[in-house]
Amino acid sequence: MTSTLILLRHGQSTWNAENLFTGWWDADLSEQGRSEAAAAGRLMAEAGLRPDVVHTSLQTRAIRTANLALDEMGLLWLPVKRHWRLNERHYGDLTGRNKAQATAEFGEEQVKVWRRSYDTPPPAITDTNEHNPNTDSRYAQVPTDVLPRSECLADVVNRMLPYWFDVIVPDLTGGRTVLVAAHGNSLRALVKHLEGISDDAISGLDIPTGVPLVFELGDDARPTTRAADVLDRALGDPAAIRAAAEAVAKQAVTNA
Amino acid sequence: MTSTLILLRHGQSTWNAENLFTGWWDADLSEQGRSEAAAAGRLMAEAGLRPDVVHTSLQTRAIRTANLALDEMGLLWLPVKRHWRLNERHYGDLTGRNKAQATAEFGEEQVKVWRRSYDTPPPAITDTNEHNPNTDSRYAQVPTDVLPRSECLADVVNRMLPYWFDVIVPDLTGGRTVLVAAHGNSLRALVKHLEGISDDAISGLDIPTGVPLVFELGDDARPTTRAADVLDRALGDPAAIRAAAEAVAKQAVTNA
Repeated sequence: MTSTLILLRHGQSTWNAENLFTGWWDADLSEQGRSEAAAAGRLMAEAGLRPDVVHTSLQTRAIRTANLALDEMGLLWLPVKRHWRLNERHYGDLTGRNKAQATAEFGEEQVKVWRRSYDTPPPAITDTNEHNPNTDSRYAQVPTDVLPRSECLADVVNRMLPYWFDVIVPDLTGGRTVLVAAHGNSLRALVKHLEGISDDAISGLDIPTGVPLVFELGDDARPTTRAADVLDRALGDPAAIRAAAEAVAKQAVTNA
Repeated sequence: MTSTLILLRHGQSTWNAENLFTGWWDADLSEQGRSEAAAAGRLMAEAGLRPDVVHTSLQTRAIRTANLALDEMGLLWLPVKRHWRLNERHYGDLTGRNKAQATAEFGEEQVKVWRRSYDTPPPAITDTNEHNPNTDSRYAQVPTDVLPRSECLADVVNRMLPYWFDVIVPDLTGGRTVLVAAHGNSLRALVKHLEGISDDAISGLDIPTGVPLVFELGDDARPTTRAADVLDRALGDPAAIRAAAEAVAKQAVTNA
């Protein structure tokens, strides 16, 4: 029996708008981000999609995206599970820094490595960083051994997959539909796994914001079809989605 | 070790404002109801209360009340569980009727019995009632044997208590704080149990809307102190709360 997985990256946050490295900082959605979330709900409703259960990170921008989308669909009552393993990549001590300033300070090449290399994390967050997110009470139950202080994408894959296998996959059994509202890098890590994208190629993948990506999965929790491009799985206008994805990809260059 | 239980009845709904029997109909909060919910969040924050987990019914007005209150507290990320056993009393075939019209049709005495007697339910909902809530997809997983077609308060006590004992009480262990966002009658049923109020006396109890009621519970999941009046457990201005409770009590009489 096939099941349906819907991945939804949150829309613009207040820190995206200010071009700051956000990571685990709990920046909320901007007004534009709220509109994107509601529009995503309408897209799902128009496509006849009806999630049975919802998963979110512990971060407000993903939770609010889910709430606004579900509200559009009349589905605020759905069961929901939240976990830090769906959080955005932890940006370490870059958290709270302006991306253009970081480029000026550390050089374009170094910042590009931190942003896009698969296995080089930024410097670990320091206790004196005024934007250290780790002290927030929502992480009080996370053992220090697993609480990240900085992450590369490989780290995100490693901490996200246990949640995928242990919590989300069981929710997909019986032909059910699962919505995951999360972040650029936690969803990139999941798409990497699902599509079998190599460590080298994954940096070229940009998940569009506010656009539901729909996967039909088989009993092995793998896609039943190959997609030449993950954007082929997107709901909505294909040209607009590709333009949005390219805009995200160009962000670092624009600010260099 | 004592734990903390916070009961929060949703604020005004669009159907409260129109004086309709609502029950399981999924009427949303009115603007006033949204303001009440946010104010309840501020009251909890000012009192230094910090829930560890949240329980709601499956009805939008309770879910939105929880979301708005938690948003005020910066706690949208809290784990949340939802269940139909926390729903409002099912008003049977009165669902969707105007309270004044029902009084004109059935007589003041009969309507008072349906509204306030402990063990006389209204007539069962009919399939032709255009406001039959039972066909909503959120109840698709509830076995027909337990899905109510009409309820008196005794019925609500019987269907709510299993959720209290099996799901909420375990969440209270270890000195934790639990927030329950629900409805006038599901909370009345819970307060009846907690305070040991008799079948005859419970009809005199009105739970104020949008006002957190705070119970300190012992290891036996019973209040550690006696309250002469459940409103003594309310956060906020005591005089305003008593006035609001009296306004709810007078509603039927005013419309008769």
